[in-house]
Amino acid sequence: MATAGKVIKCKAAVAWEAGKPLSIEEVEVAPPQAMEVRVKILYTALCHTDVYFWEAKGQTPVFPRILGHEAGGIVESVGEGVTELAPGDHVLPVFTGECKECDHCKSEESNMCDLLRINVDRGVMIGDGKSRFTIKGKPIFHFVGTSTFSEYTVIHVGCLAKINPEAPLDKVCILGCGFSTGFGATVNVAKPKKGQTVAIFGLGAVGLAAMEGARLSGASRIIGVDLNPAKFEQAKKFGCTDFVNPKDHSKPVHEVLIEMTNGGLDRAVECTGNINAMISCFECVHDGWGVAVLVGVPTKDDVFKTHPMNFLNEKTLKGTFFGNYKPRTDLPNVVELYMKKELELEKFITHSVPFSEINTAFDLMLKGESLRCVMRMDE
Amino acid sequence: MATAGKVIKCKAAVAWEAGKPLSIEEVEVAPPQAMEVRVKILYTALCHTDVYFWEAKGQTPVFPRILGHEAGGIVESVGEGVTELAPGDHVLPVFTGECKECDHCKSEESNMCDLLRINVDRGVMIGDGKSRFTIKGKPIFHFVGTSTFSEYTVIHVGCLAKINPEAPLDKVCILGCGFSTGFGATVNVAKPKKGQTVAIFGLGAVGLAAMEGARLSGASRIIGVDLNPAKFEQAKKFGCTDFVNPKDHSKPVHEVLIEMTNGGLDRAVECTGNINAMISCFECVHDGWGVAVLVGVPTKDDVFKTHPMNFLNEKTLKGTFFGNYKPRTDLPNVVELYMKKELELEKFITHSVPFSEINTAFDLMLKGESLRCVMRMDE
Repeated sequence: MATAGKVIKCKAAVAWEAGKPLSIEEVEVAPPQAMEVRVKILYTALCHTDVYFWEAKGQTPVFPRILGHEAGGIVESVGEGVTELAPGDHVLPVFTGECKECDHCKSEESNMCDLLRINVDRGVMIGDGKSRFTIKGKPIFHFVGTSTFSEYTVIHVGCLAKINPEAPLDKVCILGCGFSTGFGATVNVAKPKKGQTVAIFGLGAVGLAAMEGARLSGASRIIGVDLNPAKFEQAKKFGCTDFVNPKDHSKPVHEVLIEMTNGGLDRAVECTGNINAMISCFECVHDGWGVAVLVGVPTKDDVFKTHPMNFLNEKTLKGTFFGNYKPRTDLPNVVELYMKKELELEKFITHSVPFSEINTAFDLMLKGESLRCVMRMDE
Repeated sequence: MATAGKVIKCKAAVAWEAGKPLSIEEVEVAPPQAMEVRVKILYTALCHTDVYFWEAKGQTPVFPRILGHEAGGIVESVGEGVTELAPGDHVLPVFTGECKECDHCKSEESNMCDLLRINVDRGVMIGDGKSRFTIKGKPIFHFVGTSTFSEYTVIHVGCLAKINPEAPLDKVCILGCGFSTGFGATVNVAKPKKGQTVAIFGLGAVGLAAMEGARLSGASRIIGVDLNPAKFEQAKKFGCTDFVNPKDHSKPVHEVLIEMTNGGLDRAVECTGNINAMISCFECVHDGWGVAVLVGVPTKDDVFKTHPMNFLNEKTLKGTFFGNYKPRTDLPNVVELYMKKELELEKFITHSVPFSEINTAFDLMLKGESLRCVMRMDE
């Protein structure tokens, strides 16, 4: 390509400081170095994690920064040593990687790559510790190795899933984080059997994706738990059969759920990150066979507490990171599920705006009005 | 049989009160009622649980009582409705049952039968709420539905596993509790893969049975953890490759184990019931794939505490009851493992005494000298 090996000037949405509206700027994007790939982003979605690190409340502030990590794009050029991808390949960036060489990548049981595991504080490439983004020569930090709020971005090859080029990028772009995290938590970790009951704590995008997993698994009853009663109507589209608002009950919500289900849920998935919801998620599963899966990210001082007899009574407690998907190995298969019309991704894409209106996407999410807002980079 | 339908007078070891030596008495054993079986016990072993309820420290005292729950015997007669067993069948009594009709029995995933789950406070048969044992007409309480410290005992059909009549009852009698609990914790729940590392907390009979499971699974390294360094020599016979005494280290034992294993154990099994050991057992497993299994019984005020990120980092915490074996369905297969010489039960049977010397068996266990002491009922 004419641009290969050269700096590309393009538009990016830069977060100059915590909580301030993003600013569309012209940035310089350096060519990919060894094991790196430069990707032309066509569509990017906004995820809560972008908002979280943009607000930077209690987080290490890393600014100026280009956020964004759910996206779909096309390879523009590749750096030295990259053999699995070539210009023109369709890819999904992922905030965590798969080097295929570490103990985790070699284990069938893990997706927590030692080399490319998510690092939210790092704002540079791992190869040389530098940024590939500059504005008038001044470096702009990366975000979780993806920085998809830019027309072009540079990503380690281990953080890119090569997908079916026929897959519509404006839809499958949402598979790079929240959807796969929730969906995988159910289908890869909780693994409900056909006819079993499933509770989902938290009915945001991740929780609804976990619910989509329960629906596809043939759950007989799917109980949504959320503090916002307005969530129930929307959740019905995702298979929710019952709704429980903890605020409506004087007793702990797990007791309510146990009464509703004759002894407890077969499976439960926690997608809020609230420690009390985590504990209720575990307490509400049935003895003998219940499996609880934690997805929501806790704060650093949280303590999970329970009576150990719950384990001896054969309840299982697991957690998951990115739905236990290995990004490069497994994500192409999730795309195929969509292509076979098994996944209903359209339900998750409640809004779409031109990239130039990215701050509208932030507003929609902050107001709780959107599940996913997809931004069109060429507008 | 000549005795069917009649009261049998025989010898039993009666615990008249907490902590006092058992007394061999002549007891009357009533005929089995509906769904009950009268069994002639040939061999019975002593388990810690017998000692625990004999000491009755902090437990509801239920005396006078006939203890005993690891045994092998032969069916003498059966009550109304019993079709799966007939006089002459070889059986292992089990302290927990399998009714084959409740949700747990119908679930592939549970062995915690609703009808016949262990009940340590109940001293009577569940059919009519009465005891089948009397001494001069005065009832003597049962223990966990088995009461095998008697030449004859009455047991619910759901608490009897029918086994291969060629299996030597003086060996397989130990499969009814401790061995299967530990062995099953490893092979049915922790499920180490060939070549993986396994830590076992507590090197008593249950822990060594868990170790036997690790050995049979082809573990590459088996680390025993115990406060008593004398346990290591014995544990070597069970496949123990490394020994860690928490007292030898100033840092928490899970940190020691993580350093020894380049990031953590693949699997760990807790067989002490100490809450700190439970927590270390979970903390010591590797992120991404580690599985910790709790076996030891905690006290009622214990609280299991950990940071929830441990779960999000893909560590799994499970527990087990009777090694996840369904007593009637699965125990016959464990007997067959012994018959195929895969299990080395002899290593566990460190002592054997005549039934008349049952208090010697208690002394040996209290001094920590025995793993299993098998009592010969006909002596």
